[in-house]
Amino acid sequence: MTLNQTSVSLDDAQRVIAAGQAKAAEIESPSNIAVVDAGGNLVAHVRMDGAWIASIDISINKAFTARALDISTEDLAANAGPGDQFFGIHASNGGRIMSFTGGVPLRHNGQVIGAVGASGGTGEQDKAVAEAAAAAL
Amino acid sequence: MTLNQTSVSLDDAQRVIAAGQAKAAEIESPSNIAVVDAGGNLVAHVRMDGAWIASIDISINKAFTARALDISTEDLAANAGPGDQFFGIHASNGGRIMSFTGGVPLRHNGQVIGAVGASGGTGEQDKAVAEAAAAAL
Amino acid sequence: MTLNQTSVSLDDAQRVIAAGQAKAAEIESPSNIAVVDAGGNLVAHVRMDGAWIASIDISINKAFTARALDISTEDLAANAGPGDQFFGIHASNGGRIMSFTGGVPLRHNGQVIGAVGASGGTGEQDKAVAEAAAAAL
Amino acid sequence: MTLNQTSVSLDDAQRVIAAGQAKAAEIESPSNIAVVDAGGNLVAHVRMDGAWIASIDISINKAFTARALDISTEDLAANAGPGDQFFGIHASNGGRIMSFTGGVPLRHNGQVIGAVGASGGTGEQDKAVAEAAAAAL
Repeated sequence: MTLNQTSVSLDDAQRVIAAGQAKAAEIESPSNIAVVDAGGNLVAHVRMDGAWIASIDISINKAFTARALDISTEDLAANAGPGDQFFGIHASNGGRIMSFTGGVPLRHNGQVIGAVGASGGTGEQDKAVAEAAAAAL
Repeated sequence: MTLNQTSVSLDDAQRVIAAGQAKAAEIESPSNIAVVDAGGNLVAHVRMDGAWIASIDISINKAFTARALDISTEDLAANAGPGDQFFGIHASNGGRIMSFTGGVPLRHNGQVIGAVGASGGTGEQDKAVAEAAAAAL
Repeated sequence: MTLNQTSVSLDDAQRVIAAGQAKAAEIESPSNIAVVDAGGNLVAHVRMDGAWIASIDISINKAFTARALDISTEDLAANAGPGDQFFGIHASNGGRIMSFTGGVPLRHNGQVIGAVGASGGTGEQDKAVAEAAAAAL
Repeated sequence: MTLNQTSVSLDDAQRVIAAGQAKAAEIESPSNIAVVDAGGNLVAHVRMDGAWIASIDISINKAFTARALDISTEDLAANAGPGDQFFGIHASNGGRIMSFTGGVPLRHNGQVIGAVGASGGTGEQDKAVAEAAAAAL
């Protein structure tokens, strides 16, 4: 018996990103925002004017991480420090695991159907942007 | 003396991508479309529903190539076959050089200020999408 | 509406590097020194006689990091240790993020227009070389 | 019994690069020019204003290739096409083998002591720049 997988559409992704952009503008934290689908693959990305170049990769990979482990990157970070059970996980997956705040799974009827990643400011700012984005699903 | 470089904004990039999406829908070729800035760095990307996963990377790197060499990837391809002067260039830049049709420089007052890459169908389809996108700058 | 971005020229980069070399010679710390432009792309690099081979990559990527996040790598390091908000960021960007001293943004009229990275000695030595270099912009 | 290896100094590298720059300016082909030492490791690099971003990597790796195989990249190209004995060699060395014109070994008393790579124009232009550079050793 095959599996059925619900996943974000491009339309979903763009709505999510637009909500993230609005929050980023409000808190004055120019951001990169990315959405991946249920397969962990990029659906859409934007870099707001003035946002950091390094955050392109970071936003995409925060989203990847949040879907690839079905966990927010903040919760992952809490378990990935020295002495924690997942310390060292950032070395896996060819450098795609981001173990700091700003990646949030996108859930629909309790199922993870994708994820959003935000990068551009402090951990708190990125969290605010990613959560505002995710709330728009 | 510093250099002055004009570059695409996010607003430019999204207008360009929207035009590419419209063309892709018209010719029924679900595509990945990406825009990079004057520095070759990603500004925005979309994957239309049903578009190939491999085309995420290809669209981004077609755009990179078109800016990084200030040439359409179609024109590059014409000089990168066996016996041609640039044969082997695809091995450079960590696999980011795409030497087939679908990447087009974005020009403003004669200066390259970014590039767009499309991937999702045949070479002819990708070219049609990328050129429709570029025309919207 | 396009963006305007000022960036270092080769002339700027070579003046910056020469100043770094002079400081490195003075403190007897043979160094690699690199300058990237506003897009994070290499403009110029030198490896002084006797400087470490590993520092080629490190100097180039310290410069990349300082531009890609618009921060000195020393300030980044202060926020990237275990328990800090950016711990794990070194895994991003394909290994190009250097979170230790020696990368400094180059600013012109308050705007980051590139960055310089120095590698060859202790953190203090690299900092001295990078800061002397940056001061020559 | 240990080996003695003669290698280019930074001073040599910068003289070689300056000669390449002069030729590139003369033929109006803004170039990236790089020199590696006897170990194949980068000694110095410049990107002239307006030169292609993709040519950073290409110039450095043309120099690497010319030293790593002790052959000009033009001569390598002549043996690396489909059906030739070295066809496929560009897939080796992590993408660092450049099998097209513009990389030239630097010889001193018959021994290869480094190499120079130029990238920025046609194969003929890159060859002219690299050969003018090499002649200044």
